[in-house]
Amino acid sequence: MKPQIHTITLGVEDLEKSVSFYRDIIGWRTDGIVGSEFGNMAVAIFNMQRGSRLQLFSKTGLAKEANIQATGKNAADFSLGYYVNTSTSVDKIIDQLRQRIPASITKEPGKTRWGGYNAYFQDLDGHLWEVVYDPKLSIEK
Amino acid sequence: MKPQIHTITLGVEDLEKSVSFYRDIIGWRTDGIVGSEFGNMAVAIFNMQRGSRLQLFSKTGLAKEANIQATGKNAADFSLGYYVNTSTSVDKIIDQLRQRIPASITKEPGKTRWGGYNAYFQDLDGHLWEVVYDPKLSIEK
Repeated sequence: MKPQIHTITLGVEDLEKSVSFYRDIIGWRTDGIVGSEFGNMAVAIFNMQRGSRLQLFSKTGLAKEANIQATGKNAADFSLGYYVNTSTSVDKIIDQLRQRIPASITKEPGKTRWGGYNAYFQDLDGHLWEVVYDPKLSIEK
Repeated sequence: MKPQIHTITLGVEDLEKSVSFYRDIIGWRTDGIVGSEFGNMAVAIFNMQRGSRLQLFSKTGLAKEANIQATGKNAADFSLGYYVNTSTSVDKIIDQLRQRIPASITKEPGKTRWGGYNAYFQDLDGHLWEVVYDPKLSIEK
């Protein structure tokens, strides 16, 4: 894996209130909540400097997506997004991880409802990483 | 505040084991644990692409530094670093936040043991942000 983190996803209790917090109080721009058509996949994206993104996403949605418990230690508080350019790359990375730390994979690679392809794993403290291919997003190599 | 996140700090239970995880299993380069001379401020830094950083830091150290409880909801799991170029900028940002959301500030601006100047606040879900000036680090404007 290359040393890159493209997206920081914060799991939040109340998406609308949190959008207001980051937009109106912190002062960052967003197009607002998108993706409500995918059930609990609604998300608010803030484009950050240097091509990275901050996303707000419901905690319950994140827990479901990552196949982890919605409550408890480190549960769905946040996720760091490692973006790749093909679904095959997702498979490869997860295969390598499986050989080293099988227990860390919480969600096996598969298609997402929003048209992407992803998998999730946790580090030793339960911090969540998403390995993801988004066909609408070209990541620099 | 500009839309930038310079550093992602992950709070970990066992710093050495976590360094090994990110260095030996994930495969990222680090100079190892530094700053042990500042007590529980020891940290391992991974320089990421596009000038950002991933840091591993003890959870108890992070809790103490941010003046929050070491246990409980979202406690010291991670912190997002908003870096500025002067200590005055830290004061200004916190002053603005104080007018809008006084309760969110967990640690008032002040000098750090490692020679910097910082403050901490939390968003609606307790996600921790550090506003920080590090004289050894020049941040692009």
